[in-house]
Amino acid sequence: MQIKTPYLLFIGEADSTESAKMAIGIAHWRPENVVGKISFPNCKAKFDIPELGLRQAASLGAKTLVLGVVNSGGFIPNTWINTLLEAMELGMDIASGMHTRLNSIPVLVEKATQLGRQLIDVREPQPDIPIGKGLKRKGLRLLTVGTDCSVGKMFTALAIEKEMRKRNLKADFRATGQTGIMIAGSGVPIDAVVSDFVAGAAEIISPDADSDHWDIVEGQGSLFHASFAGVTIGLLHGSQPDAIVICHDPSREMMRGLTTYALPDLRTCMETNLQLGRLTNPNIQCVGFSLNTSRLSDSETEKIKKSIESEFGLPCVDSVKDGVSKLVDQVLKMNF
Amino acid sequence: MQIKTPYLLFIGEADSTESAKMAIGIAHWRPENVVGKISFPNCKAKFDIPELGLRQAASLGAKTLVLGVVNSGGFIPNTWINTLLEAMELGMDIASGMHTRLNSIPVLVEKATQLGRQLIDVREPQPDIPIGKGLKRKGLRLLTVGTDCSVGKMFTALAIEKEMRKRNLKADFRATGQTGIMIAGSGVPIDAVVSDFVAGAAEIISPDADSDHWDIVEGQGSLFHASFAGVTIGLLHGSQPDAIVICHDPSREMMRGLTTYALPDLRTCMETNLQLGRLTNPNIQCVGFSLNTSRLSDSETEKIKKSIESEFGLPCVDSVKDGVSKLVDQVLKMNF
Repeated sequence: MQIKTPYLLFIGEADSTESAKMAIGIAHWRPENVVGKISFPNCKAKFDIPELGLRQAASLGAKTLVLGVVNSGGFIPNTWINTLLEAMELGMDIASGMHTRLNSIPVLVEKATQLGRQLIDVREPQPDIPIGKGLKRKGLRLLTVGTDCSVGKMFTALAIEKEMRKRNLKADFRATGQTGIMIAGSGVPIDAVVSDFVAGAAEIISPDADSDHWDIVEGQGSLFHASFAGVTIGLLHGSQPDAIVICHDPSREMMRGLTTYALPDLRTCMETNLQLGRLTNPNIQCVGFSLNTSRLSDSETEKIKKSIESEFGLPCVDSVKDGVSKLVDQVLKMNF
Repeated sequence: MQIKTPYLLFIGEADSTESAKMAIGIAHWRPENVVGKISFPNCKAKFDIPELGLRQAASLGAKTLVLGVVNSGGFIPNTWINTLLEAMELGMDIASGMHTRLNSIPVLVEKATQLGRQLIDVREPQPDIPIGKGLKRKGLRLLTVGTDCSVGKMFTALAIEKEMRKRNLKADFRATGQTGIMIAGSGVPIDAVVSDFVAGAAEIISPDADSDHWDIVEGQGSLFHASFAGVTIGLLHGSQPDAIVICHDPSREMMRGLTTYALPDLRTCMETNLQLGRLTNPNIQCVGFSLNTSRLSDSETEKIKKSIESEFGLPCVDSVKDGVSKLVDQVLKMNF
């Protein structure tokens, strides 16, 4: 599955900037893939890319209208349908990460079939994912792992891809979640894959490559999450990383969605990921730490970063505030 | 999902006794749930339960016709359809573990709808499996784990249930694979569950129970299998076992289906299962080892069992040849 670019980002009647997070993420990480946005008059999301009409977007070459907004329940309201139909008339495919599948709405399916357009539901894995083979592949891989869910694994991976490309290294972000897939234009929604095929899915998104090429694989979940560790270990085994970056939110006390589980300490998190990762890549190494310090003061943040760097002898950054150049320096220094 | 008993075991034109393994397993572990078998004249499977006609089976109270035979490809041949239709006419549901779904065959669906019969595809997980909660449940749980796939995890679990029941302990086998589900009459085909829900599936098959009740959970895969560890860790976390039994085939050198992976040693296998299992049950303990020694001589077998018992101070049995009473003795001795 490859979503055709450039995109027109649809944000409809988004009731806040937060609810347009996917569109904002795409525009931030792949501005070259975006012609503009389209919203309804009652839209409350603010972000700074051109507002376009459908015809205007089509004339600028938009190939896909991307639903870049979320609502509670993840449904596709009737108020959107005419816009989606007209976008298809003007030559665009439609891509969606909503729970309601585009392919479950007969009027959209009928129009798409008639015009030869694609309806791309990025929460729906492709049907032909193989069982993992466990064979060593060429090229280099970096996986972002974490103490918990939602601690910056996607952001960190995208930032590392960007920094590596800036240095003229060969690097490709490999998406495993819906927002990441929209940004990259391809990938596998790994938590929606049948459990027998998770490692296989991780293998196909990071295939054989040049020996100096880095796949930067978006991590999911945590080995320490009682609900989701199956997703995480499958991704760790299948992506056979040479390098891992540990992502962490130092302000979080309990695991996301679980009331009785504290976060693991960084040492345990690092060692367990390395231990289990060695199954498919005996040379796996940790290159550093990426923190989300948005809930901490500057002085707390500096103290925590220094403490981690001194304990592990590895760089520790807030990928948003500091960037990830220290992590990429470390990758180069470790000479993979 | 509860498959109604007693069963009529359908083995059609099984081309060998091996291909009727599922029917033989059901008849072995749940003779009280079987009225007999039905086969075609060219059937080559030999096993010793009454051959019945459909009407005869119905008059003996058969509630479900179970497809107890496998063929290459797992399809349902046209030659079976009339028998299945007639069984429904005579009051029976149909249960199948074939790849081809009963519910994908229009003539069966039509008849089942018309008569109010169930078409049960045991490879198809129920649709309403929740995300794992990770909350401690009452009652006791034993999980069979393994160095690899296909090393006797289902057999060992069923043997432990049988031995515990013989001693008037409260015990229920909890099935996670298709043959186990047919034997138990219920369960979840855990490797067919979407990866986000594997721990949740393990939680619902081993729910809150009396404090002296044992769920004996059928393990799947191996933490050391590069293709399937996601299934295994989800089952380990969700079933939150108090006790594990390590299953192993000492004659096997490479992991099943993988050409470049050796089996883990028993010490590493035990310690990794305990380490990861502690996330959801800090008191998890190993109670012993169950070997498949069918490819070894008697003297080799005795030597290996003695060596394991002396290394670990825990019982080691071949569950087929020796039974599992030493494992149940150990469970009682450890006073969970």
